[in-house]
Amino acid sequence: MPPPVALITGASGYIGHHLAARLLRTGWEVHAVARSTSDLRGLNVHRHDWDESYTSMLGAVRESSPDIVFHLASMAVGECPGEKIASLLSANITFGVQLLEAMAQHDCRRLVSAGSYWEYAADGSYDPNTLYAASKRAFADFIPFYCRFHGLCAMTLTLFDVYGPGDWRGKLLSLLRAAASDGRVVALSPGEQVTEMTHVSDVAAGFVRAADLLAQQERPGYLTYALGGGERNTLREVIQAAEQAWGVRINASWGAVPYRSNQIMQPVTTLQTLPGWRAEISLSKGLKSVGAGGDRA
Amino acid sequence: MPPPVALITGASGYIGHHLAARLLRTGWEVHAVARSTSDLRGLNVHRHDWDESYTSMLGAVRESSPDIVFHLASMAVGECPGEKIASLLSANITFGVQLLEAMAQHDCRRLVSAGSYWEYAADGSYDPNTLYAASKRAFADFIPFYCRFHGLCAMTLTLFDVYGPGDWRGKLLSLLRAAASDGRVVALSPGEQVTEMTHVSDVAAGFVRAADLLAQQERPGYLTYALGGGERNTLREVIQAAEQAWGVRINASWGAVPYRSNQIMQPVTTLQTLPGWRAEISLSKGLKSVGAGGDRA
Repeated sequence: MPPPVALITGASGYIGHHLAARLLRTGWEVHAVARSTSDLRGLNVHRHDWDESYTSMLGAVRESSPDIVFHLASMAVGECPGEKIASLLSANITFGVQLLEAMAQHDCRRLVSAGSYWEYAADGSYDPNTLYAASKRAFADFIPFYCRFHGLCAMTLTLFDVYGPGDWRGKLLSLLRAAASDGRVVALSPGEQVTEMTHVSDVAAGFVRAADLLAQQERPGYLTYALGGGERNTLREVIQAAEQAWGVRINASWGAVPYRSNQIMQPVTTLQTLPGWRAEISLSKGLKSVGAGGDRA
Repeated sequence: MPPPVALITGASGYIGHHLAARLLRTGWEVHAVARSTSDLRGLNVHRHDWDESYTSMLGAVRESSPDIVFHLASMAVGECPGEKIASLLSANITFGVQLLEAMAQHDCRRLVSAGSYWEYAADGSYDPNTLYAASKRAFADFIPFYCRFHGLCAMTLTLFDVYGPGDWRGKLLSLLRAAASDGRVVALSPGEQVTEMTHVSDVAAGFVRAADLLAQQERPGYLTYALGGGERNTLREVIQAAEQAWGVRINASWGAVPYRSNQIMQPVTTLQTLPGWRAEISLSKGLKSVGAGGDRA
C-alpha cells in the first residue's frame, strides 16, 4: 500500500514543524505549501511555493494530490496596525479560502485546521481578543460552504498555550528559561490568568488522530474540538512548576506590569476534546523537556 | 445645528445610491469612499478614493469625520472562480476591516452595514449559499472585536430581494419587464421558491432608521435585524402580481430550467425586524413603480 499523503500549511511554524516531522517519522509522504521565503528548517518534505496567486495554490494541491490537508498556516499577531490588515487577511483568510477552493477542484475532501482559544469567551461564545483571532474565525466561516457544496469533511482543532523544546517563537517560557539562567528579574502581570499548557508533541499527535477520524468519515460536515493539555493552572502555578522542573529560582516581579486589556483570564471551558485523544505529557514532565539539554527542536 | 454627516460605502451600487440620494434630500452632509473607478452616477457627495491602502481609508474617515458610517459596499457574485477569490475577499472583507480600524482611530463609533439572507438557512442557522455570503459573514466577525475594544455601536441589516425603479443590476424583474414588452419566452425554474421582495425606498428608509437608533445608543454592542418587505410570495406569485401591476402577460416557461443547486427555497424566518421600521410599499404598489414610465432611478 502506498503511504498516505499529507499536504501541510504552516510547516515553517513551530507546531507545523513538529507535525510534519511526526508525519515523516511515521511513513507519510509529506508536501508543504508555503511562501518561497518561508524557512522549512530542513524538513524533508516536497515543497510547493505559494506566490499569493490561486494558480500556485491549485498547483500545490494538484501536484501533491493529498489524502488530507493539515492547515496550520497563520500570521499570529497580538497587535495589528492598520497598515498590516491587508497582509493579515491575505495570510489568514485568502490563503485558506484558495486552499479550500483548490481542494474542491481536485476532489480532496479532508481538512484539519488549527483554531485558537483566543476566539472564545470562557462560556464558548465568540469573543475574539485580537484581529488575529477574528481572522481565524473569518476563515472558518468559509468551511460550511465547502462542506455543503463540495463534500468537504473538516475539523478545526482549537489550540491553547502550546509549548515544547526548541521553541523559537520567543514565548514566555523561553524568556523564563533564559531568565532562570542569568538571574535577571522578569516583570510579570499579577499572574492569576489561567492557562492550559499543551505540549507540542501532544498537539502533533492530535492532528494525526483527527486525520484518522476524518479518514473514516464519509459524510461531509464540520466539527470543532479542543486539543487542550488537560491541566489548567494559573501563570503563577506554571512558573512554580517550571522552577521545580528546572531546579532553579525565577526572579519574578509579580504585578510589575498590568494585565493586557485583551488578557484571557479563563480559557474556553465548553469545547469537547477531540475523541480518542488526550494529552500524554504532564506539565511537569513537559517542562523538563523544555529545560533539559538546551532548547533543541 | 450643523447637518449630520454620513460616510457611505457602496454608493455606486443600487441600494447605496438610493440611500445616498435620500440622505442628500433630507439635509445630510454625505461623503462616499469608493474606488476611483466607481461611477457614482451624479450623486452630489464628497468623494474619497480608496486605492486598497489603509492610508486611503484612514484619509477618507479623517476628512469626512462622520457621525455614522453606512457600509453597503460589496462585490456580489453568484459564482466565484478561484482566480477571483482574492478580489472578492479584498472587496468584502479587507475593505471593511480597514474601515473599522480607521473608524476606531478617529473615534467614529457608529456603523450600519448590509447583510444578506443568503447567509442563513430558514431556521436562522448560518448556511452560506455562496462564497459571497460567507464573505459577508466573515466581515461581520470582525465587528465584535471593535465593539469590545473600541466602543463600536454596530448594526447589520439583513436584506432580502431588493427591487425598485431604475434597477441597473440585471435582476429578474428587469428581465421580466423587458420580456413583457417584446413577448419573448422567459425560461424559469419551477418557481416555488419563496421571496421577500423589498422596495429600495423602504430599504433606504431602514438604514436611516437604524442610524437614528444608533445615535441614541451609548453602550457598545452589535445587533442584527431584518429589513424585509413584509410579504412573502413564491416566484410564481411575484410574476402574477407583476402581470397585474403592469397590465401585461409574461410568457413564462415554468420549469424550463432546474433550480440552482444553491437556491434558497425559504428565506430566514427567525430574524427580528428593525424596531420602529416597517416596509411601506406593498408588492403591488412597488411593482407599479418599476413598470411605470420606464426604469428611472
